[in-house]
Amino acid sequence: MWTKLDCYPCFLKQALSALKRSNLSEEKKIEIIRKSAEYISTLSPTESPAYNTYLTFKKIYEMADLKDPYYEEKKHYNNLALKLYDTLKNIVETSKDPLYTAIKVAIAGNIIDLGILDISKLNLREYIKDIINTPLAIDHYHYFKQELEETDEILYLLDNAGEIVFDRILIEELSKTKNIISVVNEYPIINDAILEDAIEVGLNKYSKVITTGSGSVGKPPELGSKEYQDIFCNAKLIISKGQANYEGLEGRGYNIFFLLKAKCEIVAKNLDVNEGDSVFLYEKANQKRL
Amino acid sequence: MWTKLDCYPCFLKQALSALKRSNLSEEKKIEIIRKSAEYISTLSPTESPAYNTYLTFKKIYEMADLKDPYYEEKKHYNNLALKLYDTLKNIVETSKDPLYTAIKVAIAGNIIDLGILDISKLNLREYIKDIINTPLAIDHYHYFKQELEETDEILYLLDNAGEIVFDRILIEELSKTKNIISVVNEYPIINDAILEDAIEVGLNKYSKVITTGSGSVGKPPELGSKEYQDIFCNAKLIISKGQANYEGLEGRGYNIFFLLKAKCEIVAKNLDVNEGDSVFLYEKANQKRL
Repeated sequence: MWTKLDCYPCFLKQALSALKRSNLSEEKKIEIIRKSAEYISTLSPTESPAYNTYLTFKKIYEMADLKDPYYEEKKHYNNLALKLYDTLKNIVETSKDPLYTAIKVAIAGNIIDLGILDISKLNLREYIKDIINTPLAIDHYHYFKQELEETDEILYLLDNAGEIVFDRILIEELSKTKNIISVVNEYPIINDAILEDAIEVGLNKYSKVITTGSGSVGKPPELGSKEYQDIFCNAKLIISKGQANYEGLEGRGYNIFFLLKAKCEIVAKNLDVNEGDSVFLYEKANQKRL
Repeated sequence: MWTKLDCYPCFLKQALSALKRSNLSEEKKIEIIRKSAEYISTLSPTESPAYNTYLTFKKIYEMADLKDPYYEEKKHYNNLALKLYDTLKNIVETSKDPLYTAIKVAIAGNIIDLGILDISKLNLREYIKDIINTPLAIDHYHYFKQELEETDEILYLLDNAGEIVFDRILIEELSKTKNIISVVNEYPIINDAILEDAIEVGLNKYSKVITTGSGSVGKPPELGSKEYQDIFCNAKLIISKGQANYEGLEGRGYNIFFLLKAKCEIVAKNLDVNEGDSVFLYEKANQKRL
């Protein structure tokens, strides 16, 4: 999807969020936020919001000399989510359809997104229960079951640290019958999971873990390494987690199951669902929408 | 107060809010929001947020050829508030201290601010009850009672359409013993009340109504007409309503009673209160803080 009108103030809000995590003086931060506003004015509306978010963060990281400003928070949310692991696992194992429940658990994890939402005050346990008890606004589980029968391998594009514990629950279920390749970023950007996080939450025990070779927001092949591009383009079944991956990959003619919460009005509108809705959307290769 | 780091994304958000009320094409709006981002990068941190908001809106109005994009909403909130008039009046008249209650009613009205908050889903009646039952975070009513004894005239700087019905309740109380001069903007900006609104809600029956001679955000004398400057500078007692007036007038050595809700984190911090708190603050001329 392309960048919309509402995305521009959101880019600047996200720039602020990164900037607040730096140790620079208030004056220097103001200088950088002003430069960021100028930079944001150059971002093209015919790129995806995720790509423009990537450019914005890259610029902010450069200007504020930030390496991994969300590092501590990523550790915090990995630990927090790991503490929920037994509860999540139990919910899945005692459910009527563990695979379907694991999909809902994975979507529930998508709330951990420091770029957009402040989840520090959220009661995660209550929230997860709510998600699991609420029907998906788009539910292509039946297609997923069909496609699963056609393949023995799944490429799973991960999203944020912390959230990846929720993905692990789904990956564990899938790994009972399929080979899974999990994809994380090579370099830190916002709170996106990198290899260190994947290993921290034990994803390597249930899947191969590869990186995109880059530090992009979302994991479109064109921003990744040649190796990632090959794996992506040869994948038979892709699960794409989160909003940034959706923004950057939808409507481009790939065969993808998108698993996400619509966390902003613009993405919700693009999906024709309500803000906050949970979505399990199948886009088939022959349904090019761009 | 000066513009803070957090204000810059807020300026762009406010630009978007005005732009959404235009009939331009999505492409044209995107072009303007990008130009707005560039413009915002030029705004000085040593001006008040209200002044920079004013510059932002002026620029957006120019670029999008907007005259009074909040016109219908202003009428809507005038009408909505007028429907609450009897209830508000009754609350004040049956209270132990009608003047004090009228002050709280006036603060409650400060929620009607389309620039910052979306109040379309707010239950106004419940909200007003809450405000009246909650102590003020800063309460300089005792100073106000003292200062009232020293003067026979009050200059009352009004804020938004709709909200001015709540101010009318206070102005009615004050007008029982004092002469009141109410101040509105000359030209429309956001949902600030202009003369038409003041007359629509009957403020002219209880006070003289003058305009600033300008269409600024907030009513600092330097942006107004010579006539307004003279009245402002000779006023013995000023009541300043709302956040924009506070941003533009606090700490400048004027004798002012500020009546507002702290609607954003930055203003709350400047006041040393919590976001959402209600404030009745006296700043005395000899307490220069700038």
